[in-house]
Amino acid sequence: MELIFLGTSSAVPSKDRNHSAIALKAFGEVLLFDCGEGTQRQMAQVKLSPMKVNKIFISHLHGDHILGIPGMIQSMGFRGRKEPLHIYGPPGILSIKDAAMQLGYFSLDFEVYAHELEEGIIIDEEEYRIECVKTQHNVPNFSYAIYEKKKPRFIKEKALELGLEPGPDFGKLHQGIPVMVNDKLIKPEQVLGEERKGLKIVYSGDSRPCEAMVKLAENADLLIHESTFEADYTNKALETGHSTAAEAAQIAKDADVKELILTHVSTRYRRSNLLENAAKKIFENTKVAHDLMIVEVKSID
Amino acid sequence: MELIFLGTSSAVPSKDRNHSAIALKAFGEVLLFDCGEGTQRQMAQVKLSPMKVNKIFISHLHGDHILGIPGMIQSMGFRGRKEPLHIYGPPGILSIKDAAMQLGYFSLDFEVYAHELEEGIIIDEEEYRIECVKTQHNVPNFSYAIYEKKKPRFIKEKALELGLEPGPDFGKLHQGIPVMVNDKLIKPEQVLGEERKGLKIVYSGDSRPCEAMVKLAENADLLIHESTFEADYTNKALETGHSTAAEAAQIAKDADVKELILTHVSTRYRRSNLLENAAKKIFENTKVAHDLMIVEVKSID
Repeated sequence: MELIFLGTSSAVPSKDRNHSAIALKAFGEVLLFDCGEGTQRQMAQVKLSPMKVNKIFISHLHGDHILGIPGMIQSMGFRGRKEPLHIYGPPGILSIKDAAMQLGYFSLDFEVYAHELEEGIIIDEEEYRIECVKTQHNVPNFSYAIYEKKKPRFIKEKALELGLEPGPDFGKLHQGIPVMVNDKLIKPEQVLGEERKGLKIVYSGDSRPCEAMVKLAENADLLIHESTFEADYTNKALETGHSTAAEAAQIAKDADVKELILTHVSTRYRRSNLLENAAKKIFENTKVAHDLMIVEVKSID
Repeated sequence: MELIFLGTSSAVPSKDRNHSAIALKAFGEVLLFDCGEGTQRQMAQVKLSPMKVNKIFISHLHGDHILGIPGMIQSMGFRGRKEPLHIYGPPGILSIKDAAMQLGYFSLDFEVYAHELEEGIIIDEEEYRIECVKTQHNVPNFSYAIYEKKKPRFIKEKALELGLEPGPDFGKLHQGIPVMVNDKLIKPEQVLGEERKGLKIVYSGDSRPCEAMVKLAENADLLIHESTFEADYTNKALETGHSTAAEAAQIAKDADVKELILTHVSTRYRRSNLLENAAKKIFENTKVAHDLMIVEVKSID
């Protein structure tokens, strides 16, 4: 799995940081989390085509997380897209989509579906599952957890012992489909290893620290958490519904995650050392995202 | 006067070129011509604050010329703007503004006015005038001419001869206001030099070559003309309502302008030599704009 931080600013963009957007390249797809203004241009910088994006997940309906949607849709149309696009987000995402469709002359040959979410499992595909929960911002905000569904290993030795021959049957069994060999039914569990834990990645969107966030992040391989301010601005964070670096680190610690990446950085922090150092005092394995940063997320086994 | 090319791409952005937008710093204002997605970020790159922009002129209602408007408005609100913002454009600009106001949660302490234009003089300020005419694209497109109103010189010697003393009266007369000196009325024309021709800058927006464009550009100090394609794509230009570099150069020649800058360059041209060379065969004083290019426009006298 590869994460590309397309934009890491808060509220307004700076010379170095564009509005929020994160692309997850995994499961043969590009999943987009938030889509601030200029996201399609950031994608051009890393040679990632908008045509590959089929699902966009929006944390909340503030401009710095959504204003890249209209341009993304129009560029997809310009490039001749046929596949439907699905946009998921809090209630209100439907009227955002409707407004986006009013922005000038353009024609589309594909459908755009907006899905207004409730908490729970919102996507359940063969290779992954996505869950969202409400967290605490000054407008409704959803945080997302992506769970990789990892197949058990296929144990070739067991298959050969059972009289199977290498070929399509091996694939079927690994996919969980029983096969007949010499009038005998072979079940997948006879040739597969133990269940394996897939990777878990969690993205906060914009939120104050809260119990729901800690619970969602529990044992995640990677927590991507907003960190708009450092401790001197704790009151400002409280007032605007954001987290400080230390607060994000405390969540990482409480949720016992493996790694923390801070994003959504206020323009007042030209260099990110301040935020990183503050967080590391509480949770050592922390880094601060920068625009176009690419992170490979791998499981150990 | 200073022109800043904030975005010089056509249709979709590339690594090097953002969507269309040009800022004109002049007359104590920042006038914005077109406002494609990501314009506020491009402004951050050249340290130009959105707070300085009071007037935005839109050539036509294609996404690559308008999708920066919603973010610009929201960022102005975030920064506490009080002054009204005026957006000028072809019929339909009013519903673009209305749709922009539906894009998420935000609050504004200032008014946004959208003005649906007809051909003619649309702005007549003390220091400048702006005219627009309809030119030929596949949707209604306005091209703009900016005329500097240059005051005649104040001839100090004549003022002194008439018994005036250096001070506020000099200023009033230069502003065109008569003053009384020793019970004698002094009229501005008694102390001012000949009428002076101000600078003229013309911006095409997106257009096929046409007579209206040549007429608008007549004797301009600078013509900024779209040049989406080069000659090999003349049919494509015709089909999509655009101009080739050679066609833009022919307009510059026919209109007898002083300088031509080509912009709105298709992503297929990685290097701009091809367009520049094609244009220069017809009109020598041509350059191709690049993103964040700054051009000073000066009169000779």
